[in-house]
Amino acid sequence: MNDAWVERDRRRVWHGFTQMASYAENAPVVVERAEGRWLFDPEGRRYLDAISSLWVTTLGHRVPELDAAVEDQLSKVAHTTLLGNGNTATVLLAEDLAGVVPLDDPRFLFASDGASAVEQALKVAFQYWWNLGEQSRRRYLVLGDAYHGDTVGSLSLGDGGFGTELFDPLRFPGVVRAPGYRDPAWLKSALAVLEENAPTLTAAVLEPLVQGAAGMYVADPADVGEFCRACRDAGILVVCDEVATGFGRTGTLFASEQCGVRPDLMCIGKGLTGGYLPMSATVASGEVAGAFDGDDLGPRTFYHGHSYGGNALAAAVARRHLALLCDGDVLANVRARAADLAAALAGLASHEAVGEVRTCGLMAGVELAPPRPGLRWGRRVCAAAVEAGVLLRPLGDVVVVMPMLTSTAEEIDLIASTLEAAIHTSCR
Amino acid sequence: MNDAWVERDRRRVWHGFTQMASYAENAPVVVERAEGRWLFDPEGRRYLDAISSLWVTTLGHRVPELDAAVEDQLSKVAHTTLLGNGNTATVLLAEDLAGVVPLDDPRFLFASDGASAVEQALKVAFQYWWNLGEQSRRRYLVLGDAYHGDTVGSLSLGDGGFGTELFDPLRFPGVVRAPGYRDPAWLKSALAVLEENAPTLTAAVLEPLVQGAAGMYVADPADVGEFCRACRDAGILVVCDEVATGFGRTGTLFASEQCGVRPDLMCIGKGLTGGYLPMSATVASGEVAGAFDGDDLGPRTFYHGHSYGGNALAAAVARRHLALLCDGDVLANVRARAADLAAALAGLASHEAVGEVRTCGLMAGVELAPPRPGLRWGRRVCAAAVEAGVLLRPLGDVVVVMPMLTSTAEEIDLIASTLEAAIHTSCR
Repeated sequence: MNDAWVERDRRRVWHGFTQMASYAENAPVVVERAEGRWLFDPEGRRYLDAISSLWVTTLGHRVPELDAAVEDQLSKVAHTTLLGNGNTATVLLAEDLAGVVPLDDPRFLFASDGASAVEQALKVAFQYWWNLGEQSRRRYLVLGDAYHGDTVGSLSLGDGGFGTELFDPLRFPGVVRAPGYRDPAWLKSALAVLEENAPTLTAAVLEPLVQGAAGMYVADPADVGEFCRACRDAGILVVCDEVATGFGRTGTLFASEQCGVRPDLMCIGKGLTGGYLPMSATVASGEVAGAFDGDDLGPRTFYHGHSYGGNALAAAVARRHLALLCDGDVLANVRARAADLAAALAGLASHEAVGEVRTCGLMAGVELAPPRPGLRWGRRVCAAAVEAGVLLRPLGDVVVVMPMLTSTAEEIDLIASTLEAAIHTSCR
Repeated sequence: MNDAWVERDRRRVWHGFTQMASYAENAPVVVERAEGRWLFDPEGRRYLDAISSLWVTTLGHRVPELDAAVEDQLSKVAHTTLLGNGNTATVLLAEDLAGVVPLDDPRFLFASDGASAVEQALKVAFQYWWNLGEQSRRRYLVLGDAYHGDTVGSLSLGDGGFGTELFDPLRFPGVVRAPGYRDPAWLKSALAVLEENAPTLTAAVLEPLVQGAAGMYVADPADVGEFCRACRDAGILVVCDEVATGFGRTGTLFASEQCGVRPDLMCIGKGLTGGYLPMSATVASGEVAGAFDGDDLGPRTFYHGHSYGGNALAAAVARRHLALLCDGDVLANVRARAADLAAALAGLASHEAVGEVRTCGLMAGVELAPPRPGLRWGRRVCAAAVEAGVLLRPLGDVVVVMPMLTSTAEEIDLIASTLEAAIHTSCR
């Protein structure tokens, strides 16, 4: 019956980052329902969701408090526009977020896709300087291996890979790139690139602490902090893309905190609604937002907006989720389980099929070491894990492990032991 | 109490397309709850929602069947990833949509923001030719006055305006532009531009029938059909952006139908979920999608995806909404009320403060005719209408009237008479 659903799925749904001609062969799970950290297919077979439904689910599926938040807001209104008007659900969320984001006097521009939050950030940074009369600042400092999304603007900030070079003619040219976190000397190079280009830069855009889609490369938080302070000293804006790292994933509410960074702009998404509903936001400091004050209908205004930005149902669930996340126990659990996960995966590092294990909080990448390209080891390992009831998905030959923030020690064990067995049977 | 909410709102929420320094002065409504086609602020004052919460709400707010669809799906699962995996709620929606969209053998790439659907379409069109080995096709034919969204790629296809020229350095260069629908001779020019550039073009991208954000410019459907057939004959793809026109707004389910167009790619959003939840999609014909079949992890794959694409809660409400919309009565009501609206607004056209009235289905633009720039007549008229209990929002000096598809004749009368009175008192 799952096979029949896979066939129906394949016929009509074009899945992102997925070769549809091979979709059915790569152990896809068509989910019908879920409970906590477990997914169920239409046959009733269950899978531990060890990718947090692609890095978005935090507390679990079907959390009673989050379900109640949706239902309660549904009895008021699902959505009304934020273009020139407001909604109390969105105001309440923004006020609560303002108390926890690491920005001064924060303002929230809501959108729905994470890529849109990045697009808003890069356009706000661009116009900020234009509004200040510094129109020669048009470039961005970004890092190697960076991933910020797939829309043309967010793609332009990213470093490519995944065979996306074909889109190079669509990228904007104003990007200067320093090495990413996989280079132990990235900071020194980045500081040099900064010094050389500062007068033409609008902002530095970075994923603080962890470059996730690159394959989970982890930086020293002190290095990230030093880089951001240097950007500040050089007079350019700091944009932290916390779409993947935000909302507890790295052990603090935001990764910027561990780096001692207070960005001028921050992008959030994924975990913002606990994995329930699409919502993203660009957070701007009051100083940045203030540069857009001017005459009504005048040129200093930010003419950009998304129809469903600030959706009331998403806002209500995001607000309840934030309260649950901030009660303390969740982040303590992340740190405890992160230690478990690091310990459990450490044993894998000596396996001949494994090149390196990288972890930060409850984000981990196990880089396989195939003897030659084209063996699809990442695919085979994850298919074996799914067969054994643990949902994993690779980034090339890096197996991503992204357990939910509420995972138990037993679940971390199960994920690690299943992964180990999958590597044993698949990498030969 | 609404004032207190406006102040709280202004402090933390940065509204799209809104000069925040003037936000509080422009009669914003902070919505607390809604019933049908009426919005209520925290003081209990009610407003007829004559902009369909910015063109997204179709049947109304708090539709029992849609609320039930959300609650029913909530008891299964809110969201699971579509990257390499599936969800039955999304499959069911895609199957139902496949029965009504005007494309052959359609496939659905889901995202959340409408702009993301446009970004997906333009990248699919680009890679389509790359996959076929025609790598010199890199340009897009688009129309004057076009609006396709605010992300860098969708912005590049659009014609600007709203003071967005400052972002020109971020636009990609491969765009050739013909006049838009406001030029009665647009078709002749567009055919000439097509003929001149066809060998280098990937696709023509257009808003079929109505250019909405431009100020509601309406084309002859036969002209749109002829243009799209000419594009087909010239061997380029046709991309219809139906984010604004889709789901009944123009009197048919999709505007393409009235033009006799079967596009290769179509963008949908806004009304897809009836105005409840963020969901957009790029629809591709089977022929276009087939050009992406290839080796697993190979270069023909479309490496693009959004975390919340295919969100199960949004899919469930979209599916129920589609069933309600297709039962026949709704579209018949749109056509009847469209005639009422056109008749009611026709009287305004002779008003000395009105330049032109343009309508198509339940989309209308009343273009004011201020004697000189800078009078903010659009703002003043809409503020007076809000004061009188009808929520309107202008595009510059064009007052947009976008009643819900279920509006009654009495509500159309109320909107038109309120607008007329607002023009009387505000434009002098």
